[in-house]
Amino acid sequence: MDEFSLIRRFFSRSKKSRTDVTLGIGDDAAILRVPDEHELVVTTDMLVAGVHFPNDTAADAIGYKALAVNLSDLAAMGADPAWATVNLSMPQAEAEWLEGFCNGFFELADEFGVALVGGDTCRGPVTIGVQLCGFAPTGKALRRSGAKPGDAIYVTGTVGDAALGLLHAEGKLQLTQAQASYVRARLERPTPRVGVGRALRGLASAAIDLSDGLAADLGHILEQSNAGARIELAALPLSPVYSEQLQKTLGWDLAVTNGDDYELCFTVPPIQEQRVTSALAGLAVDFRRVGAIESEPGLRFYGVDGVLCEFPDSGFNHFQG
Amino acid sequence: MDEFSLIRRFFSRSKKSRTDVTLGIGDDAAILRVPDEHELVVTTDMLVAGVHFPNDTAADAIGYKALAVNLSDLAAMGADPAWATVNLSMPQAEAEWLEGFCNGFFELADEFGVALVGGDTCRGPVTIGVQLCGFAPTGKALRRSGAKPGDAIYVTGTVGDAALGLLHAEGKLQLTQAQASYVRARLERPTPRVGVGRALRGLASAAIDLSDGLAADLGHILEQSNAGARIELAALPLSPVYSEQLQKTLGWDLAVTNGDDYELCFTVPPIQEQRVTSALAGLAVDFRRVGAIESEPGLRFYGVDGVLCEFPDSGFNHFQG
Repeated sequence: MDEFSLIRRFFSRSKKSRTDVTLGIGDDAAILRVPDEHELVVTTDMLVAGVHFPNDTAADAIGYKALAVNLSDLAAMGADPAWATVNLSMPQAEAEWLEGFCNGFFELADEFGVALVGGDTCRGPVTIGVQLCGFAPTGKALRRSGAKPGDAIYVTGTVGDAALGLLHAEGKLQLTQAQASYVRARLERPTPRVGVGRALRGLASAAIDLSDGLAADLGHILEQSNAGARIELAALPLSPVYSEQLQKTLGWDLAVTNGDDYELCFTVPPIQEQRVTSALAGLAVDFRRVGAIESEPGLRFYGVDGVLCEFPDSGFNHFQG
Repeated sequence: MDEFSLIRRFFSRSKKSRTDVTLGIGDDAAILRVPDEHELVVTTDMLVAGVHFPNDTAADAIGYKALAVNLSDLAAMGADPAWATVNLSMPQAEAEWLEGFCNGFFELADEFGVALVGGDTCRGPVTIGVQLCGFAPTGKALRRSGAKPGDAIYVTGTVGDAALGLLHAEGKLQLTQAQASYVRARLERPTPRVGVGRALRGLASAAIDLSDGLAADLGHILEQSNAGARIELAALPLSPVYSEQLQKTLGWDLAVTNGDDYELCFTVPPIQEQRVTSALAGLAVDFRRVGAIESEPGLRFYGVDGVLCEFPDSGFNHFQG
């Protein structure tokens, strides 16, 4: 089997057929239908071996994460994910690697009803670009810019686990086997909060996903909303593993400044808090109020004792916009 | 200026503001509006240094071509290009390179009214993925699959020039300075035939862009249309440079089997030929009838003497789908 056939075989195995795909893979471009009264929502993220994941990362974890980070972006917009394209370069078309990549990718694509509608592959260093299109009712997509003083700040799931996963992968953190397997899954297989984002349409005043860490990402909301915020560290949702490490030597830093958790951070006007609680109740995703938007610019973290805490390294910096 | 600011500065300089961009760069995703009664048309292509262009290629030529190849795909669909996203990895964020890349990219984006609405950048080997969205009236996008026996086959512009450009770049072809500059421009700055594609909506029965060469690309039309074709070599549109080389030693091979010309190849039912001629008349793009679709499977090239010619190497092979 030549390389053309190999690629085609793996990437044409999407189980998902969507009625809004007029024409999928196989022409110069895909033809798709955005529902009436909806806007198109488009995001893209790339992953580079040695930068976003260690060179020895399993292919299925790469395939999974390449789609997951894009799903997370659409979740933060409150959009319904629909169609993906993939750009993939790799040193050689190797059946085992491709099969693993596709296993991870399509596992998640099928779960979220995403159809693969196009892509490009070529020889080169391992680099993956995924572009994801979705849609939201016109005017209802969530943005970073709508937070107002007095709005409550919420975070889904737990923060800091992906950072522990990376420390463990680098051999810098001793954990039990169960703990290790939990934090590695949080790092390699984050759960995009698509259902949460969708439920927040019309209720949240701003939203973002936690890819660069709470401080940096909430910072984007504050910048675009021309506002400040206070966060109560004691309110941050932590996993049992993180809580245990917190009491040893770890402190709050990783939960505040490290990314890759792909949880949602969102703000809610007081009048909508009850509705948000109801809307998220059936989703089996934890969410917690961690602070409030304030009119004074800046992001302030308060410890359990009410003392202002500083986190010098508050952003993930590989010149990513 | 830090790397974040550098990237933002260069990529936010798109002059084009489109009224259908509800929200552009700067949030988790872009929000866009496809016009009523239109379908979304989506394509993506990646370029890798050392594979798609020599490592010493000027940054502006890379920026130009990265968008041009995607515009060419939308041209082949008869779609109106609208919104692009860019994934860019490079060893370091270097102002001079970025400025050059953006010069080339935005020159073409502005010409075709394309807005840059998102992207991702990171450190890594030079790899560029561009994804381009456009739209076409519902049901009117061109495909590869509609060619019927008896349809005429047309090609725009000239074929084989990009191949000469590459030979010249590799030092394998002696040309005058004027000739060299012409074929290098054809290689590095192809003109996407967007206007032609748009004019062919409702008239052409099938279309494709010539990225892999006439033999391979027309082959895709034949495969998807379950048909065959005959091409008269003497009818192929050649530039004066190619014609001169043809008479020396070059032969037809490069015009038939080499890609990168980004012209359109399209088929037209006899009843529509007059309308196509009228529709393309005002576009200042040459187009020529080069053959006809036949019911007998296979692609046959005939020489000036009516002899069947074989072209063994009829496709560009870097496992590209």
